[in-house]
Amino acid sequence: MFEAAEVGRSIGKAAFKDAEPEVHQRLLGLQQKLRGSNKALIIIVSGVEGAGKGEVVDRLNRWFDTRDVQTFAYFDESDEERERPRFWRFWRTMPARGTIGVMFGSWYTRPIVDRVFEKITASGLDQELQRIQDLETTLARDGNIIVKLWFHLSKREQQKRLKQDTEIAKFKKSPLLKEYSKSYDRFAKVSERAIRLTDTGLAPWHIVEATDTRYRDIETGRTLIAALEAHLEAGDDRHDSEAPAPAISLTDPSSKRTVLDAVDLTQALAPKAYEKALEKAQARLHKLAWAMNREKKNAVLVFEGWDAAGKGSAIRRVTSAIDARLYRVIPIAAPTDEEKAHHYLWRFWRHVPRAGYMTMYDRSWYGRVLVERVEGFADENEWLRSYQEINNFEEHLTDHGIAVMKFWVHISFEEQLARFKARQTDATKQHKITDEDWRNREKWNDYKLAVNDMVAHTSTDSAPWTLVAGNDKNFARVQILETVCEGLESILQ
Amino acid sequence: MFEAAEVGRSIGKAAFKDAEPEVHQRLLGLQQKLRGSNKALIIIVSGVEGAGKGEVVDRLNRWFDTRDVQTFAYFDESDEERERPRFWRFWRTMPARGTIGVMFGSWYTRPIVDRVFEKITASGLDQELQRIQDLETTLARDGNIIVKLWFHLSKREQQKRLKQDTEIAKFKKSPLLKEYSKSYDRFAKVSERAIRLTDTGLAPWHIVEATDTRYRDIETGRTLIAALEAHLEAGDDRHDSEAPAPAISLTDPSSKRTVLDAVDLTQALAPKAYEKALEKAQARLHKLAWAMNREKKNAVLVFEGWDAAGKGSAIRRVTSAIDARLYRVIPIAAPTDEEKAHHYLWRFWRHVPRAGYMTMYDRSWYGRVLVERVEGFADENEWLRSYQEINNFEEHLTDHGIAVMKFWVHISFEEQLARFKARQTDATKQHKITDEDWRNREKWNDYKLAVNDMVAHTSTDSAPWTLVAGNDKNFARVQILETVCEGLESILQ
Repeated sequence: MFEAAEVGRSIGKAAFKDAEPEVHQRLLGLQQKLRGSNKALIIIVSGVEGAGKGEVVDRLNRWFDTRDVQTFAYFDESDEERERPRFWRFWRTMPARGTIGVMFGSWYTRPIVDRVFEKITASGLDQELQRIQDLETTLARDGNIIVKLWFHLSKREQQKRLKQDTEIAKFKKSPLLKEYSKSYDRFAKVSERAIRLTDTGLAPWHIVEATDTRYRDIETGRTLIAALEAHLEAGDDRHDSEAPAPAISLTDPSSKRTVLDAVDLTQALAPKAYEKALEKAQARLHKLAWAMNREKKNAVLVFEGWDAAGKGSAIRRVTSAIDARLYRVIPIAAPTDEEKAHHYLWRFWRHVPRAGYMTMYDRSWYGRVLVERVEGFADENEWLRSYQEINNFEEHLTDHGIAVMKFWVHISFEEQLARFKARQTDATKQHKITDEDWRNREKWNDYKLAVNDMVAHTSTDSAPWTLVAGNDKNFARVQILETVCEGLESILQ
Repeated sequence: MFEAAEVGRSIGKAAFKDAEPEVHQRLLGLQQKLRGSNKALIIIVSGVEGAGKGEVVDRLNRWFDTRDVQTFAYFDESDEERERPRFWRFWRTMPARGTIGVMFGSWYTRPIVDRVFEKITASGLDQELQRIQDLETTLARDGNIIVKLWFHLSKREQQKRLKQDTEIAKFKKSPLLKEYSKSYDRFAKVSERAIRLTDTGLAPWHIVEATDTRYRDIETGRTLIAALEAHLEAGDDRHDSEAPAPAISLTDPSSKRTVLDAVDLTQALAPKAYEKALEKAQARLHKLAWAMNREKKNAVLVFEGWDAAGKGSAIRRVTSAIDARLYRVIPIAAPTDEEKAHHYLWRFWRHVPRAGYMTMYDRSWYGRVLVERVEGFADENEWLRSYQEINNFEEHLTDHGIAVMKFWVHISFEEQLARFKARQTDATKQHKITDEDWRNREKWNDYKLAVNDMVAHTSTDSAPWTLVAGNDKNFARVQILETVCEGLESILQ
């Protein structure tokens, strides 16, 4: 999930100076519209300690006309508050229709911190998250706009901030930074779950990369603009249906970086090294597949990727290592009539392997948030809510003890062109290239964004995405094989 | 909750003979419409052991054209099924669009049985229920129609069936009846929670009183008709928003009985007995209120009832027993501007008492499902989903250790008329009777149904409704006082 916010997005000084006034003005205009509406705007400012949440709150208070903005810190708990149900403090400070509430430290803070320091159990956390989801659903259905921002820093970046010792840095440093930074990994794990279980169509999360402060602030502004536009322009009749989340628009060229841009496509394996590594990994996988069968463990592998990225040949390197009795490959093309007559997840549930076996999906349920999103086959409501449907589906699998691994085989735009051209001139491969492939290529940037959002919403601790460096096919195949082996080993432990 | 299905609803033989062919025909017509739609109908047949679920399934298979109906029993679990996530068996048998699936024993069976026999923990049950809610939401949003029927029998009635020993009764008796009937109370408690946590606007529960088999079957048919009409007549554009549940229509006069008809309004207290009982109960309450304060416990009392039922004077008998420092009465009239600018629950959250104190709400959040429903101030979506919002709100209170007691002061239609007339002739009471009171009186039956549904959806183990026999004011006051005392005592234990 957080890998989507560690890709080095930034905005230069000049670009920021260009963009900031426009964001400021747009927000003021939308605030004016909000005043005349029956909706409140609730902004939740959460994230990693040290990511500059306080600075963001300052910025919001500069951007908006503060007469209608209230900021709540929920830092100390008064005895008045302690003596009532925990949500009382949130209800009493709920912004009125037409106004804005900035929640700096919100209903998310305590459950996450309590779980990190083991004051509550795993199911205690889930219960609190369910209550939060109920609360947000209740508020959203009443017409309110909920924008949930998670400001992320990598572990390294957090450490860097901890060590900053200029006067201004010292002054700004939260007293919690030192304490919390020791538990970075644990915070990441708990936060991921908190975000995942509360990432709904009515109140979706926006994960903002916070390393570059200029990018962080502009992205915050743009997310708010998109949310306000979507809700205020739809009018009031919207409050009963799912409010579609704003698509994250990255209009600044420097911020068009996605999680895919962080993949190092120069990685390669020379033929000899490849032969050796391939053989070793395949032998290892062969044994592991039998061990899985003996131990009655099952596995699900998902393969997605660009056209011509080498998905098919990579799958063959995996399957050729495994006894044919132990796996099935399910190629996902257009749905059958029977499949169309069911929920889109039905066709994937069908093929869940039984104990001791593996299913490899050659394309998968992720079509919903990739091709169906980009081509408009699913409307925004549908694909937005499917992140949670997909996460729920995969949780059924992982909770049953099934190993779930997901691969996106990535290649560069140029590499794809080279491969397309090569296919056209090779008689044995001409059938593999169609007009559709060329059309898809025109939507490269839309797909990139879709992949980014997919990873942000669905790469989880128990069912992670692996972004495969596919420009060199050898490297890609070995990367996939080794990742599969590691995944199976951890299940067999 | 289940008190709403223990009121003695029945249908005579002749009325049944009249009604049955119409239900049958209507269902066939709607099935034809369903075929041409992109929706599947999923009927969940659950309930108390011995309530005749098998007979209902037989009836459904007679009513519908069975070519498009599949019945699933989910009785045994195959090894194929055991080796996959638990929901796999449900997904594989999901009915296709245009068809009907009758789930006889559904995803609800195992979690409930496992919890009753303590194979899973309380939070394990909640987790499973959350999954069920996710599944049903997923299916409903895809356009499917989910009708969840819970067939209820009182404990006494179940015992009676256990003892039946005609040949046919023996033949029909489930082998589980004997075993499960020993745990009736535990089943009731667990089932109540299961129903409550999964009673959503998208997939609401219908609790059917199953003592009289004719009523049971006709009510089943009518519930299905209402659901199919609501979904099929709305067309296909409905699938993204909340699908409003069908209002339960009880067109057969004999079945118009509601939970209020089960209240014995002849109960009365003679003046002397009243004085004595009142004094005793008030003294007891006085001490209990101070004990609550010492122990830092808080309490919330809710008073609702018919116009002129004596709510106000009953509240005064409660407050006059309690030290004025320890309680507040919140009269709920038209909302203030500030209250209107928030979610309807906001104005009630405000007044939640702190530790050691009590709040009495004179009218309450239940206005949403009473006056707002009947007068059309809230649309069907709004009041339907508010059952769950209200249950969630009250769970925040009870989980914090707050005692929650709710009173509906009931009087007969005739008694109300007598009181209205008396008010008109008494100069000191004339101000208490308005045109609105007379208008409300015209909607007596609508209110009766609303009260019935309210009790069915929101009377819970930890926040129960008490239906007060109000024709005799003396009796009503003592009943309320004693119930409050018992409630506080159980919190103080």
